[in-house]
Amino acid sequence: MGELYHWFDLLGVAVFAISGTLLAHEKSMDGFGVIVLASVTAIGGGTLRDLILDMPVFWVHDTSYFITILVTVAITIVWLNIRQSFPHFLLQLADALGIAFFAIMGAQKALGAGVPVMTAVIMGVLTGCFGGMIRDVLAREVPMLLKGPLYAIACAIGAGLYAQLVSMEINQQLAMWIGGLTTLMVRLAAIRWQLSLHVFRYHN
Amino acid sequence: MGELYHWFDLLGVAVFAISGTLLAHEKSMDGFGVIVLASVTAIGGGTLRDLILDMPVFWVHDTSYFITILVTVAITIVWLNIRQSFPHFLLQLADALGIAFFAIMGAQKALGAGVPVMTAVIMGVLTGCFGGMIRDVLAREVPMLLKGPLYAIACAIGAGLYAQLVSMEINQQLAMWIGGLTTLMVRLAAIRWQLSLHVFRYHN
Amino acid sequence: MGELYHWFDLLGVAVFAISGTLLAHEKSMDGFGVIVLASVTAIGGGTLRDLILDMPVFWVHDTSYFITILVTVAITIVWLNIRQSFPHFLLQLADALGIAFFAIMGAQKALGAGVPVMTAVIMGVLTGCFGGMIRDVLAREVPMLLKGPLYAIACAIGAGLYAQLVSMEINQQLAMWIGGLTTLMVRLAAIRWQLSLHVFRYHN
Repeated sequence: MGELYHWFDLLGVAVFAISGTLLAHEKSMDGFGVIVLASVTAIGGGTLRDLILDMPVFWVHDTSYFITILVTVAITIVWLNIRQSFPHFLLQLADALGIAFFAIMGAQKALGAGVPVMTAVIMGVLTGCFGGMIRDVLAREVPMLLKGPLYAIACAIGAGLYAQLVSMEINQQLAMWIGGLTTLMVRLAAIRWQLSLHVFRYHN
Repeated sequence: MGELYHWFDLLGVAVFAISGTLLAHEKSMDGFGVIVLASVTAIGGGTLRDLILDMPVFWVHDTSYFITILVTVAITIVWLNIRQSFPHFLLQLADALGIAFFAIMGAQKALGAGVPVMTAVIMGVLTGCFGGMIRDVLAREVPMLLKGPLYAIACAIGAGLYAQLVSMEINQQLAMWIGGLTTLMVRLAAIRWQLSLHVFRYHN
Repeated sequence: MGELYHWFDLLGVAVFAISGTLLAHEKSMDGFGVIVLASVTAIGGGTLRDLILDMPVFWVHDTSYFITILVTVAITIVWLNIRQSFPHFLLQLADALGIAFFAIMGAQKALGAGVPVMTAVIMGVLTGCFGGMIRDVLAREVPMLLKGPLYAIACAIGAGLYAQLVSMEINQQLAMWIGGLTTLMVRLAAIRWQLSLHVFRYHN
């Protein structure tokens, strides 16, 4: 089962590396800038999570993450140079899959470190959303996280549900699937129906 | 006394959470973006301080900080939706109180970790100012810290004075009050009389 | 020999502090903003490297780094106020020297922590380039790293060569010189002949 998780983890990294490469393409970045942006997007959230939980940073002793990024960036560049475009829905789906998996993995790792449930939920949000936030800051965009429909909240709901199920001693793997699918569904629904949470009322 | 500190600490967090919420309102952010911006402002500086000092990050095992943020954000949103504005001087006062307390807490925690006095002063500045700096970067503002009148220097003076008094074996609590009030006074004076430190002379 | 390294290290810090001060001058920042920008540029990359490798952050117990920054900033400000300009080539040379030294120091420290060669190369890039990236983000520039000619790649080539030579059990100091000079040459050549790595082909 650990093996399977590792593959899912690499899939999440690949998906975020694609989103970084696409943004680098839009912004006409060159050579290594692409790799930097893709790497930051893919491993930024998990790196901060591990630093805050005071655990070994996940990619330091396992080079498979960085190799995945390099291969993904190379393939995405070739694709972009041939096709000049990318099916946008595919990207959004992939991105939603990425945050779904990362949110659950973040919450799981945090619970494993013995932190309170609320901290585990924060770690889920942080793992799922932080990499994309740094990506947007570096590319001088207003972070999607701060404006986008239900981006962080999808992570929070999924991670919270997962942590809740775990505390009820439900089977760990089942809890992961339920939490992950919930994040995925909330995010896809938000994209499909342009849902968002308006908290400020502007009188103008 | 530790109890009292904890309450002051939460007050500092609340004050910075308000400033994050106000900026999110100005930038028309939605739902969770507000919470993210408020949280980053309120706990960003202390998080970096704890990481650099290699101490447990203060909010990981104590959920009272995050609950304070959530409650503060909720109250501020309700206020903004009713009043559509916020007395600006009150915010500046609150912000000045926040940096005053955080600067001293940062220096104190650093001295407790056994670092040199100069590092303790840096940690005071970092704790007081870093959260607001990330807030401004995320909202795509030029960080107030880099332009504003005596923002970082107020933290440095207060934290330095505190560290100096501690090294003279003055009563710890008295040193905190003197250092904190100094930061507060310098910052308020800088706001009131538009003081700033011009180091570059431009001939044009 | 350790003594010599420390001096080189301080030289790298000074060079980056100059580049931070120059950018602060361009952006009309004031007083402490200059010191903050110079410090972030000079010690940002190494700080992140040490956090990720879970080693004590290099400047926490050694105040010589921060004193170097303060003195460098002061001298640079005086120079700028007298001359109002700075020979641009000298800055680029200094910056190239800085990334050359930092890239090798980063890779060396990472190898000393027992990480795989690929991680050591990443750490070389991160140490050499990250400080300048934060500097550009704070000053609201598109990071030079993401656009500039062969910035990160020069670090990667030098750090990679160094790690390769070390693994072949070549004399440590010789490997540092070869790696460092390679980074320097690649970067200077890229500046001189405007080399860059175009990976995206845009049909328009």
